Amino acid sequence: MVNVSVIGATGYAGAELMRILSGHGGVNITHAVSKSFAGKRLGDVYPNFKSRDILLENMDAEKIGADSDVVFFSLPHGASCEHIPHFLKRGVRVIDLSGDFRYRDAAVYERWYNIPHNAKELLGESVYGLPEVYREKIRNAGLVGNPGCYPTCAILALYPLLKAGVIGADGIIIDSKSGVSGAGRGEKLENSYCEVDESVKAYGVASHRHTSEIEQELSLASGRDVIVSFTPHLVPLKRGILSTIYAPLKNGASEKDIFDAYGIYKDEPFVIVSGALPEIKHVAGSNRCAIGFVCDARTGRLVIVSCIDNLVKGAAGQAVQNMNIMCSLRETEGLEGLGWYL
Amino acid sequence: MVNVSVIGATGYAGAELMRILSGHGGVNITHAVSKSFAGKRLGDVYPNFKSRDILLENMDAEKIGADSDVVFFSLPHGASCEHIPHFLKRGVRVIDLSGDFRYRDAAVYERWYNIPHNAKELLGESVYGLPEVYREKIRNAGLVGNPGCYPTCAILALYPLLKAGVIGADGIIIDSKSGVSGAGRGEKLENSYCEVDESVKAYGVASHRHTSEIEQELSLASGRDVIVSFTPHLVPLKRGILSTIYAPLKNGASEKDIFDAYGIYKDEPFVIVSGALPEIKHVAGSNRCAIGFVCDARTGRLVIVSCIDNLVKGAAGQAVQNMNIMCSLRETEGLEGLGWYL
Amino acid sequence: MVNVSVIGATGYAGAELMRILSGHGGVNITHAVSKSFAGKRLGDVYPNFKSRDILLENMDAEKIGADSDVVFFSLPHGASCEHIPHFLKRGVRVIDLSGDFRYRDAAVYERWYNIPHNAKELLGESVYGLPEVYREKIRNAGLVGNPGCYPTCAILALYPLLKAGVIGADGIIIDSKSGVSGAGRGEKLENSYCEVDESVKAYGVASHRHTSEIEQELSLASGRDVIVSFTPHLVPLKRGILSTIYAPLKNGASEKDIFDAYGIYKDEPFVIVSGALPEIKHVAGSNRCAIGFVCDARTGRLVIVSCIDNLVKGAAGQAVQNMNIMCSLRETEGLEGLGWYL
Amino acid sequence: MVNVSVIGATGYAGAELMRILSGHGGVNITHAVSKSFAGKRLGDVYPNFKSRDILLENMDAEKIGADSDVVFFSLPHGASCEHIPHFLKRGVRVIDLSGDFRYRDAAVYERWYNIPHNAKELLGESVYGLPEVYREKIRNAGLVGNPGCYPTCAILALYPLLKAGVIGADGIIIDSKSGVSGAGRGEKLENSYCEVDESVKAYGVASHRHTSEIEQELSLASGRDVIVSFTPHLVPLKRGILSTIYAPLKNGASEKDIFDAYGIYKDEPFVIVSGALPEIKHVAGSNRCAIGFVCDARTGRLVIVSCIDNLVKGAAGQAVQNMNIMCSLRETEGLEGLGWYL
Repeated sequence: MVNVSVIGATGYAGAELMRILSGHGGVNITHAVSKSFAGKRLGDVYPNFKSRDILLENMDAEKIGADSDVVFFSLPHGASCEHIPHFLKRGVRVIDLSGDFRYRDAAVYERWYNIPHNAKELLGESVYGLPEVYREKIRNAGLVGNPGCYPTCAILALYPLLKAGVIGADGIIIDSKSGVSGAGRGEKLENSYCEVDESVKAYGVASHRHTSEIEQELSLASGRDVIVSFTPHLVPLKRGILSTIYAPLKNGASEKDIFDAYGIYKDEPFVIVSGALPEIKHVAGSNRCAIGFVCDARTGRLVIVSCIDNLVKGAAGQAVQNMNIMCSLRETEGLEGLGWYL
Repeated sequence: MVNVSVIGATGYAGAELMRILSGHGGVNITHAVSKSFAGKRLGDVYPNFKSRDILLENMDAEKIGADSDVVFFSLPHGASCEHIPHFLKRGVRVIDLSGDFRYRDAAVYERWYNIPHNAKELLGESVYGLPEVYREKIRNAGLVGNPGCYPTCAILALYPLLKAGVIGADGIIIDSKSGVSGAGRGEKLENSYCEVDESVKAYGVASHRHTSEIEQELSLASGRDVIVSFTPHLVPLKRGILSTIYAPLKNGASEKDIFDAYGIYKDEPFVIVSGALPEIKHVAGSNRCAIGFVCDARTGRLVIVSCIDNLVKGAAGQAVQNMNIMCSLRETEGLEGLGWYL
Repeated sequence: MVNVSVIGATGYAGAELMRILSGHGGVNITHAVSKSFAGKRLGDVYPNFKSRDILLENMDAEKIGADSDVVFFSLPHGASCEHIPHFLKRGVRVIDLSGDFRYRDAAVYERWYNIPHNAKELLGESVYGLPEVYREKIRNAGLVGNPGCYPTCAILALYPLLKAGVIGADGIIIDSKSGVSGAGRGEKLENSYCEVDESVKAYGVASHRHTSEIEQELSLASGRDVIVSFTPHLVPLKRGILSTIYAPLKNGASEKDIFDAYGIYKDEPFVIVSGALPEIKHVAGSNRCAIGFVCDARTGRLVIVSCIDNLVKGAAGQAVQNMNIMCSLRETEGLEGLGWYL
Repeated sequence: MVNVSVIGATGYAGAELMRILSGHGGVNITHAVSKSFAGKRLGDVYPNFKSRDILLENMDAEKIGADSDVVFFSLPHGASCEHIPHFLKRGVRVIDLSGDFRYRDAAVYERWYNIPHNAKELLGESVYGLPEVYREKIRNAGLVGNPGCYPTCAILALYPLLKAGVIGADGIIIDSKSGVSGAGRGEKLENSYCEVDESVKAYGVASHRHTSEIEQELSLASGRDVIVSFTPHLVPLKRGILSTIYAPLKNGASEKDIFDAYGIYKDEPFVIVSGALPEIKHVAGSNRCAIGFVCDARTGRLVIVSCIDNLVKGAAGQAVQNMNIMCSLRETEGLEGLGWYL
């Protein structure tokens, strides 16, 4: 049994992590930390946990470090840097769900997040936690920067195609539609029911932080600088991201060429490429990324549709997948559940 | 391993049953029958099943009878009667999700369902599949009539109180709010998105079939005829029922008396009674029934709020719970998942 | 032209009032007051007003009193008491949308609202602004207490029946389902999209303030003390209330007797009684109250379904209807719009 | 008073047209035709019309022609061609809401709609009913082809920029998110509540008919062939379209250049261009098109967000606007209502 702790157990991603870990046969939850609700039971904050007796604690790095093999941090960006070195020094492995350890270059992080990075020295050893690309590095990583939700959805769709050279690296446009849980739990007027329901809005246009994360990984895939247009939208639903991606077809690439490039995923347990276009309800509740596409000869463009559950493959599920890899558990353990469709 | 077959695998309840059985460690799905989609894969109809290779078949009672220990029928009422005797004769056990085998008295069924009952002779041996009330009988049952969604929600809330005599049997009112999946999968204008969204409607007022099922069980609990007012409503969400139940407090019954009566559930894995009132999101996706209440001294009434997921505890999950009991598996096997809250 | 001012123009009810008044041919909006947004344009806060140039101002009782024939107060309860006497003294007529001037007895208000009433002396002259009951008194009123949303929906359904004696006054149960706009605009976690969507909850069980308002009016209608059970619920939609009401049929009252009692509404422009049960989408966006019912001989109960748009007939529309009556305008002016159904 | 008739009064667009015309001071509705519900009252099909006594009739071209100044056709494409010549010959003016009379070239229509055009000879005289572009031609038109919903939203956003040459004509991508009412009223499983709710899907990728309509008008604006990628999506809400549009900035065009190009709309009553990005709730229920944009120097692209209510500016409202122009009524008559925001 792997002893795990969760720091930030009562945000939406943290609570989803607790939910997945609660059904995971190979782990033992040693600590659940919540600054806002320390002293309460998790079931008091999220009544779906009422049948479990889980005490929420204050942060106590000493105690947690002594009891844990793996620590998940599910805090806002900038908040975990002060704690993580302590755990790494003790040999406790860390999976960080914030944006802090996803970057190779601190300057890029600082430009897009607009705060100084307080643990730059760890960026050299941290591994970008996208198993479909970095599985071998994740296996032995001490520190994993768990990918963002939008980047997971976009990179999985584009990475194999750029690598195979079937699409051009210039002119890529990523238009994403996300459920509201991606905005986190918080008392913001803009996320209140009456403001979100029966509406759609674009936000962070030409400036969303995830742009830089997507560009980093696509640049690595194509061996040159890739610049993309990325527009996230809020749609009235709770879970899920659907990204519609436009890219120039290269050298008369055909549908078969695209399928061939995606062949890289043939043994992946959590990526499904198919002729039919996916919808959010096909993946909600699961750790799957579903990808479909249309080759549009008329415009010379490939249109890809990629779907994930932002809380699972886009956050908590992928974090557990990374933990499974790091701890030599079956990679799908705790993540076998089918999406719930309804 | 228990060999199970599902007849009617592509309705909403049937698909949910397939989803739960797919994650159940103790069963082997031998046949999935769908009249409408025979020959296709389940993943073609419900893409959340894409990762599983499940062929949909036509009904073949011979073949299914030979291969199955338990057969689930998830068909409209009136449709399973012709097949069930065949299975029972071979010693195959049957769990029927329709209303056909929930009644002790065929006349009551015929009055409320307005069709003749074509297997009256089986009503004597069929067991009403509410484990919290009939667990011991279910254990050895050949045929289980799996309860309706509204009745499950209402009976679990009222049964212990009538039995303990802390509420009166006259003047009970059950006002239920249900998600749309309860109406099944079908091309009905009234269930189309634009007709349901941003609206609420009452239906089947003073005439819904489930009234008779509720009354049968409450009458058995209180040892006298119980007549209730039951009003179901459609609300714009997919899963879940919240029932608000009004009953006269008897003999100055106190909050403590109510809690004491509910003490009957103290070892039940799927019923949670608590001081705080439950909401649908506390149980959606789980096999739990969550119950809360307020004693209103001012009006002399008890107000109970009871919540279930109509597709799980109200249909497929309860069917699996019954199967677990019948087959001496752990009762919670395949049903441990917490509700998903988000 | 009637000169009107709105105090509290940026809450949900206030903004709806501004929207209705903006399309009203007989009024001139002289002042729109918003504490939170004074100095901004209304179109900056509610972009649907972008085409109108409406400045939000600070409260200035002198200036507003000088310019206005009618002042609408759309503030939280307890907040308007300090200002209203000033306006009344100047002969400016006031329509207050809070609970403060709906009561005949300050003690009832103080018990249910749990704060002292700071303008008790005005309760004698204030008129309960339900035109279908108090039209003549409203005509000459200086101060109107605009009814609550739940009371409007329930009283319109029950008042004629109690008056006619076709239902009993004991054992009335009002189970109401409301959209989220009723909770007002505010940054409350419980009203955030992810907490409301795909769920239903009961709240204020046996303790909601509107209970006392309903009881006051029903008692007046029946000539004796009426005590009701009232349970409000939050459902995932923006606008509208559907109330399901249970009452004992008296003296073998028939469907015809009920229709006869409702005959009182035959010339009412905003109340529709019909054989078919209404749904929220039939009235959303309109000032109508739609009422339907089923006589249930089996239980001896009448089940009434009553629907309104909580922001219109339940708040801003009714306030404008009252103003029309007070100012001898056509009662339906500005309120003719049909519900939008979609 | 203008005498108007509506053919197809019980589809969603037709019912919206009836709603708007019912509140229009300058028209008299002479006939409302509905094949499916002839003989019923409109209030029986859409209970929001209960207060109006409108009889639904069968098609009777003679009678309607004799009584009407203007006839609106709101039928599926291909269905109005047989009737329209009859009306035109009598001097009755026609506004057709289908795709049939939007095209200059019948071959384009036939390629994208995949049926023969049965009134090709009328394409020469029909006018594309986008007032912001063709107001003068509409004034005297006998036959107006009312624009599609997606084209209205996209063309209004792009037309001025192409005309001014501030964006390039190559590489335009239009990613649209639409509410479900756009799919019309019908018993389609894919539009049932449980299939739409909590999901998003792309459809008609690289093949949607509106592509050709958009391209026709953008080509005319830029004086050369324009080919676009257009992807419509279904999102879980009833009304509204938000289109996110990507286009290459030309010759270092600045924000000011874009605003200048949009200056063409400065006297338009129904188009609002603003620095802030619009959301669907800013226009729902109104005849407005709200446009905002971001100049992204980093990618050299302009990102435009354009919103309309698909049933109003995208269908019925625009049809009424066209009628107002044709009949020399005030252009905004019947269309002044603000969006309802909530």
